[in-house]
Amino acid sequence: MKFALTILGVNAATPAFGRFPTAQFLQIHNDYFLIDCGEGAQMRMSDFQVPRHKIRRIFISHLHGDHIFGLPGLLFSFDLNGRQEALDIFSPAGLEEMILAQLQPGGKLTFPVSFHEIDPTSSRLIFENDSVAVHSIPVWHRIPTVGFVFREKPRPKNIRPEKIGQYQLSIPQIKAAKAGENIQLPSGQIIENEELTSPPAPLRSYAFITDTLYDERIVPHIQGVSLLYHDTTFCDDFLENAAHTMHSTARQAAQIASMAGVGRLVTGHYSSRYKTLEVFLEEASTVFPRTVLGLEGSTYEL
Amino acid sequence: MKFALTILGVNAATPAFGRFPTAQFLQIHNDYFLIDCGEGAQMRMSDFQVPRHKIRRIFISHLHGDHIFGLPGLLFSFDLNGRQEALDIFSPAGLEEMILAQLQPGGKLTFPVSFHEIDPTSSRLIFENDSVAVHSIPVWHRIPTVGFVFREKPRPKNIRPEKIGQYQLSIPQIKAAKAGENIQLPSGQIIENEELTSPPAPLRSYAFITDTLYDERIVPHIQGVSLLYHDTTFCDDFLENAAHTMHSTARQAAQIASMAGVGRLVTGHYSSRYKTLEVFLEEASTVFPRTVLGLEGSTYEL
Repeated sequence: MKFALTILGVNAATPAFGRFPTAQFLQIHNDYFLIDCGEGAQMRMSDFQVPRHKIRRIFISHLHGDHIFGLPGLLFSFDLNGRQEALDIFSPAGLEEMILAQLQPGGKLTFPVSFHEIDPTSSRLIFENDSVAVHSIPVWHRIPTVGFVFREKPRPKNIRPEKIGQYQLSIPQIKAAKAGENIQLPSGQIIENEELTSPPAPLRSYAFITDTLYDERIVPHIQGVSLLYHDTTFCDDFLENAAHTMHSTARQAAQIASMAGVGRLVTGHYSSRYKTLEVFLEEASTVFPRTVLGLEGSTYEL
Repeated sequence: MKFALTILGVNAATPAFGRFPTAQFLQIHNDYFLIDCGEGAQMRMSDFQVPRHKIRRIFISHLHGDHIFGLPGLLFSFDLNGRQEALDIFSPAGLEEMILAQLQPGGKLTFPVSFHEIDPTSSRLIFENDSVAVHSIPVWHRIPTVGFVFREKPRPKNIRPEKIGQYQLSIPQIKAAKAGENIQLPSGQIIENEELTSPPAPLRSYAFITDTLYDERIVPHIQGVSLLYHDTTFCDDFLENAAHTMHSTARQAAQIASMAGVGRLVTGHYSSRYKTLEVFLEEASTVFPRTVLGLEGSTYEL
């Protein structure tokens, strides 16, 4: 089952050097999520052949323009394409009024949209289904802002195919074995679960943390995630700007990644002060070697 | 003095095939205008190296999303760059509320913005200065929509340089000659104005007509313009769609261009039903040979 992140926009504040403002497309099994939606996100989805019509849920970190100005256009395009499927949008308070004001005088959309308000003051379970759970995380920015952690749900064990024939297992027995039970054969013999099954693949997880000061309070919330995208708006050379604008540096992001013991760190939300990006990778890698440079159009598969 | 149109976005309704929604940049002498502002207009300005900071006036034809969703991002970027110069935005009623709703919770902009409401029911002079006058034109679309005509103001005649020395003309005499007067020399001799001056260059003009049904009532308003951009959302093969959605075909645009005796016709506002565009040029050219295909990044100089 696929778990893959595609970066659509990776620049901070305003587009520059061909880089677009923040937007990400995340596939987890058969769920397709959009995370933030800066201006031009729909163009980027076309550029990178992302199946945007499959998106059912959109998660918005905060209401600064570079994270939301692509939403009206995306909804408008969904509408023009005759979309029928419901869309759920999760964000801190105030988004609904901003978006609905944009959709006039076009009238009603062809599909239902529900806005869900996230309380940004504590971590909450904001969405779950059989395969994934999404929690919000409070972060520290100039306006109410949250991060998100997407975690695969625990899956049943895998039955070893050769054991089905060997012990003539029935469907209910297979189901019980996958749930971790030992199996008693008609002969009375007990087969230990460990013989019948292999453990499920490790659970994968992704944390999206943008637009925040360096703050160690997020560490427990993202402990051990497979992939962490963390605000790296600046490098050391603009440390004061980072503090002043309530953003993080590449080094700070790497420190958080290191403390949280994540699998990989992806950089992003680059300031327009930087024409080239290698410096972000260099700086973060000195602290956390498993860093990859976040680039538009790149897909990070877990 | 320059008079040049650069097309930033040329697609209808939604971006497709790398084409962006409507936006145009117009330079007339030292005035820089933006006409409509679809999503991604600011990215297109970067792509085509348009000096966006020089824009002082924005003209919006109507409030459908594909003509305005780039405005919040553009204003936001102006703000981030510390813009000080005032910005005037002209549009049918309702735009101010839509835009201001987007700029929260970012607070006040660093520069003053004035919204000017255009009455879409009749042609009006909506802006003028020493070098240009801009009139609105009513067009026929699903919501209140206007076109725009930009006309150079009449200029003084050109003094023939060699005549200044020949007759020892004073500054007041030169000024009088440029205004069309004959000049009396100290000897009493009268020099005819035609000898002293050459006529000014012909006045140039540009008409922007988008999102309208075929309607001959616009012809008097755009009579003889140097350059006409006219809605060509469809070709003959989707004539009914054009009527239903209140748009025009390439043939209809060419008929209008022909009736108005314009210099050149530029096509645009292409439906996403068309992957390639040659058909628009072919269809319009059969009726009006001086047609050029409107393409993003192209500049049409007069």
